[in-house]
Amino acid sequence: MLSALDLVRRIEAGTLSPEQAIDRCAEAIAAREAEIGAFATLDLDGARRAARDPSIRSRPLRGLPVGVKDIFDTVDLPTEYGSRIYAGHRPAADAALVSMIRRAGGIVLGKTVTTEFAHMDPGRTRNPHNPAHTPGGSSSGSAAGIAAGFMAVTTGSQTGGSVIRPASYCGVAGFKPSYGLLPTVGMKCVSWTIDTAGLFAATVADVAFAAAAIGGRDLRVDGASPGAPRIGVLRRVPWPAASADMALVLDQVAQATSTSGARVIDLTLPPVLAEAFKAHAVILGYEARRSLAFEYDRHRPLLGPHLRELLDDRTAPTAVAYDEARRITNQARKALANLFADVDVILSPSAPGAAPAGLASTGNSTFNRLWTLMGTPCVNVPGLADPDGLPLGVQVIGRFGNDRATLAAAHFLETAIARSR
Amino acid sequence: MLSALDLVRRIEAGTLSPEQAIDRCAEAIAAREAEIGAFATLDLDGARRAARDPSIRSRPLRGLPVGVKDIFDTVDLPTEYGSRIYAGHRPAADAALVSMIRRAGGIVLGKTVTTEFAHMDPGRTRNPHNPAHTPGGSSSGSAAGIAAGFMAVTTGSQTGGSVIRPASYCGVAGFKPSYGLLPTVGMKCVSWTIDTAGLFAATVADVAFAAAAIGGRDLRVDGASPGAPRIGVLRRVPWPAASADMALVLDQVAQATSTSGARVIDLTLPPVLAEAFKAHAVILGYEARRSLAFEYDRHRPLLGPHLRELLDDRTAPTAVAYDEARRITNQARKALANLFADVDVILSPSAPGAAPAGLASTGNSTFNRLWTLMGTPCVNVPGLADPDGLPLGVQVIGRFGNDRATLAAAHFLETAIARSR
Repeated sequence: MLSALDLVRRIEAGTLSPEQAIDRCAEAIAAREAEIGAFATLDLDGARRAARDPSIRSRPLRGLPVGVKDIFDTVDLPTEYGSRIYAGHRPAADAALVSMIRRAGGIVLGKTVTTEFAHMDPGRTRNPHNPAHTPGGSSSGSAAGIAAGFMAVTTGSQTGGSVIRPASYCGVAGFKPSYGLLPTVGMKCVSWTIDTAGLFAATVADVAFAAAAIGGRDLRVDGASPGAPRIGVLRRVPWPAASADMALVLDQVAQATSTSGARVIDLTLPPVLAEAFKAHAVILGYEARRSLAFEYDRHRPLLGPHLRELLDDRTAPTAVAYDEARRITNQARKALANLFADVDVILSPSAPGAAPAGLASTGNSTFNRLWTLMGTPCVNVPGLADPDGLPLGVQVIGRFGNDRATLAAAHFLETAIARSR
Repeated sequence: MLSALDLVRRIEAGTLSPEQAIDRCAEAIAAREAEIGAFATLDLDGARRAARDPSIRSRPLRGLPVGVKDIFDTVDLPTEYGSRIYAGHRPAADAALVSMIRRAGGIVLGKTVTTEFAHMDPGRTRNPHNPAHTPGGSSSGSAAGIAAGFMAVTTGSQTGGSVIRPASYCGVAGFKPSYGLLPTVGMKCVSWTIDTAGLFAATVADVAFAAAAIGGRDLRVDGASPGAPRIGVLRRVPWPAASADMALVLDQVAQATSTSGARVIDLTLPPVLAEAFKAHAVILGYEARRSLAFEYDRHRPLLGPHLRELLDDRTAPTAVAYDEARRITNQARKALANLFADVDVILSPSAPGAAPAGLASTGNSTFNRLWTLMGTPCVNVPGLADPDGLPLGVQVIGRFGNDRATLAAAHFLETAIARSR
């Protein structure tokens, strides 16, 4: 994998040019892209042109190669949202996050494969750790592209578990910030209450650096020695349990962090959070039927089966059910804020287990949905694997708005995991 | 003006066809559009074709002619956002609200003039009550188009006071629902925290009917006899005071509603709401710099002077200032919710006074900004005027999520005003 921080330090030291960084990406892409299929569109020539701008080294990302999930509009590259309806579509403007990446000195290397409208109908991307397995979704190409060393930073979006789950399956760091920290303007919307923009990079320190540079915020955790966090481990969940392998990894991480000085306690979720878990489907269903009304009303035959099922009317939530789901959400957010009186972060599996075999499904988001709805920052911490070598990630969940502390705790865990191996 | 309810009842009774309703619009448009300039694009032929679909009479809006503010994407009509950057732009999809209007049986008659990106640089629309005066903005064409009888329902959006103020200036009903009640998906974004979609119609009962039909919600207030509301009158505000004419109208309305049986008390805002009033500018400035980053970075010379001033870096709020403004906003929302323990709605001027002379400015949003940031439902109640015959509207502000009660209280006021004249 390409560490964003490592590349940036070399560019700052003058031992690597932005063009040479792109050359390294190009080599990895030449070697494995045909197998992995991370890109919807690749633009190495455009990236090389952008890298020759001498001012780019003075900006925070220093000309770092960035992949943009093909759910974000780009004015100079096709934007198809993983949908046949939008074949060859050229938006009139860049998404806000894309403009922010360019302002920060990031160079867009290409668009990465998304599931159809970031829902569940998969693209062609394969898992770099085992191409017979899914990379997860919906940010499939962005997670696989980091794992394969194609880019240093990629963007993602999460409505169910579309950042944290593929990060877990691909063994990379994934960061879903607090709701609204990174703008979703110019990102194809499924659910305006839940859709959240996020980022991927090789390590927690790398993804924190990228978020800091793009967001213009104090989020970096490299070089710092944060105090040991108070961690609440979520072993029992109000949804189907994790695999035995994943449960084992959760125990290992809890043990390793405890050994490193963290205070680790067991946490149980109050009942309203189980209700909120169910409310997620109601809010998603209600809003998706409106957000994607044009596509459904005019192009239904071109939609994939999962999305068609979501948008068909048979189980459509009513406005009354939707309002109730929003009410439960607000109550759950308050209950969750209270939980954070006792712990700094919550530790949970990032996914039910390792990446499932096959490409027909991108896995499921049971371990992510609640946190997406709560709007809290989540970080996938990579570094562990199952006996077959498939990555297993754990998720650090922080208090809304405490993104830096959440990244710092995730960095603490990542360091503890590395030390324990 | 064309009453949506009146037209719908005639269509239901078979005494008016949807095509004849469009003919009535066409007559009004032929008589005054050259003077008023409400439309960015007019499509009478397309509307007549849609009106010939026999199924349209079975849907809630019954083929009612609707105007769409040119800040919402339409796939079949140009969408220019009031900006030279987007001259002739054809979006790839309808905005969610446009799809919902079509689903509900509304017929899009045209796109209405917006200020540039719904900010402060005006379009060419004039006030139907006196063409030498502004219609207000940013939803200039939507408010003026209702006042001139061009359409029965129009869409608007409000980030400062862009629905309630032009409704007040043009003497029509304007409804800014609770944040998120009507989707902003496919609406050009300025501020993702504040942008709110709204509606205009001739009377409060008409706009409530339109919101109910489009939103699929129990919001109608026609035919009902709501109990007299408890009203808190906001005579002292933490921003510049209203004109003497407007203050007089506020007293008249308070008196008329009291005579009609409402309990009317004087209300004072707690200090955190004055802080939130100031926080509005910070949130708007921070988010607009990101939402409109593409337009600023690539097309700055094509932006109007007000928008350029907003987006220029000199006074750019930092992330720290933005986070603090969001924190104040959350505190203010709680304080406001507490205020609603004692009153059902708040009564305030809709604008500082009547529509100012001239077209260079669309007036200011001091009386609206706080409520937009709070996300509470607001209704402009028309029916009163200054000595020169220029409309003066009052604003009914309800508790977040209590949209029906807010509309019912506004309807009560509208009836009381009519009775008092």
